[in-house]
Amino acid sequence: MNRITTDEAARLLKQQDNILILTHRSPDGDTLGSAYAVCRALRQMGKRANVICDDVITDKYSYLYDGLDSTDFEPQFILAVDVADLRLLGGLKNIYGERVDLCIDHHASNTGYAENLLLEDRAACAEIIYELLKVLGTPIDKKIAECIYTGISTDTGCFRYSNVRAHTFETAAALMAAKPDIYSINRVMFEIKRFARLQLEAYLTRTMTFFAEGRIGICTIPSSIRQELSLTEDDVDDISGYARKIEGVELAAMLREQADGTVKISLRSGKVYDAGAICVALGGGGHFSAAGATVRGTPAEAADILLAEIYELYPELK
Amino acid sequence: MNRITTDEAARLLKQQDNILILTHRSPDGDTLGSAYAVCRALRQMGKRANVICDDVITDKYSYLYDGLDSTDFEPQFILAVDVADLRLLGGLKNIYGERVDLCIDHHASNTGYAENLLLEDRAACAEIIYELLKVLGTPIDKKIAECIYTGISTDTGCFRYSNVRAHTFETAAALMAAKPDIYSINRVMFEIKRFARLQLEAYLTRTMTFFAEGRIGICTIPSSIRQELSLTEDDVDDISGYARKIEGVELAAMLREQADGTVKISLRSGKVYDAGAICVALGGGGHFSAAGATVRGTPAEAADILLAEIYELYPELK
Repeated sequence: MNRITTDEAARLLKQQDNILILTHRSPDGDTLGSAYAVCRALRQMGKRANVICDDVITDKYSYLYDGLDSTDFEPQFILAVDVADLRLLGGLKNIYGERVDLCIDHHASNTGYAENLLLEDRAACAEIIYELLKVLGTPIDKKIAECIYTGISTDTGCFRYSNVRAHTFETAAALMAAKPDIYSINRVMFEIKRFARLQLEAYLTRTMTFFAEGRIGICTIPSSIRQELSLTEDDVDDISGYARKIEGVELAAMLREQADGTVKISLRSGKVYDAGAICVALGGGGHFSAAGATVRGTPAEAADILLAEIYELYPELK
Repeated sequence: MNRITTDEAARLLKQQDNILILTHRSPDGDTLGSAYAVCRALRQMGKRANVICDDVITDKYSYLYDGLDSTDFEPQFILAVDVADLRLLGGLKNIYGERVDLCIDHHASNTGYAENLLLEDRAACAEIIYELLKVLGTPIDKKIAECIYTGISTDTGCFRYSNVRAHTFETAAALMAAKPDIYSINRVMFEIKRFARLQLEAYLTRTMTFFAEGRIGICTIPSSIRQELSLTEDDVDDISGYARKIEGVELAAMLREQADGTVKISLRSGKVYDAGAICVALGGGGHFSAAGATVRGTPAEAADILLAEIYELYPELK
């Protein structure tokens, strides 16, 4: 890996034209916001640039690429944004994996597959993009500000996660001069849900079980509910910590019944119990506060296996 | 009302001792965060200061006053923070209403009952407190930063509302130097819920009705559910816009059955329909996006009355 500075990255981009910007699979607000911000800036500079992604980009992100028609050109320079590993490019890896010229990223796990503008202390890749555009001298208009803001707010849970730094707030402050419609963006990203998702939450509330005087909460998503509510992957995404919403719950489990007779366990924890240790003991892995494992059996059997392991490691919860 | 500057307010406070800080009734994160930030700063300056409130301060705010025992003194200077109107002092109005020396506030509706440091373009009163402490030269320690951060994050829905300005983010950025535990604060303020609240949400999801092809969503909280789930005021607070969470819902109503045979209607709207106009027509009042009215009858009758009024004003929804 060859680490370069923001100034060097800006110099590289200034020299190039016909730039293709790659985003990661399962695209989120940061990879898309970063990509479309750079794309808009490069076009402002009179260059040709496009963004591509190996997955469908859901409608809620449409304001990011609003007015940005794809132009036709032979890519001469390949830029990857927020892509820690070439495998995250999906099918684009086969086409462009060998020839990425520049990578802009904030993941400490970045594998260094290209010239690398990597700042691991930034909460979002979009923060780095902001700095880059300042160096490039591109005016930050409302649309670019909204792209960058989207990256920052989605990667920080709207400034709620522990990755937020002074720099994160400073970037957001600077963006406000362009009057981004942050109220609408945050409503789309954090407030609006499909009705099926609310129905799933209602189901989980109704069926959740508690142990250890409410310090353990276990939720189950049986296959039947997925079908009954026609749940999409989006609906069941980021719901692993659902029971952690409840006052007093320190360990929250989500058991997802799989078609192959296994159960996927996601475990979320606060500061007291090590979810990673529990899941490792079950053959899985993860961190202290978020971990997972897959076990064989029905959801009820999986709950028993999980509880037995928790009690083994933390007998005081029994 | 006599408007004064931050410098003048700082000079006033420097000259005084034995300072009593008043907060508003139904205390929120901004009035409490602002009050305890000033109290901590004044004590750092060697002065005696206490905070009082006419209501019970719920446990979730305990970190704000952690380590701040009430001291015994005869108040010589009365400061009110985030109190737009003396009536908001509750019972404290009778004792101190006539002798408030200084008011620090950000509400445009402030009635001007004292020397007034009033900055209406601040999203939170706590932003003004930050500026004041800078002028006073008080070091912003972790505890003070957490008090100020709490005011800002709670009054902006964690940087989500349209009242957020560059200044809001700049203040948050400056606070980060003191390493406030914003993750834990945001978890307590925005994530954790009583189980009864989740049960109420599940009930609302199950019983919600939709009209106008999903553009109108009506929820009802019957008295029986309040009793069955032992709901507190906290649990039913800020749930008025529940149906607005759902994709496509432009008008969200919450009907709360009252003991006296009436129904309290709260109406929330996006940018299309005027909730205020609808509620005014029902004898109530409010703004474009949030309004309310009280009507006589059962919840089902109230829903009919409300729908009739919506269709009257917006026949295209019929």
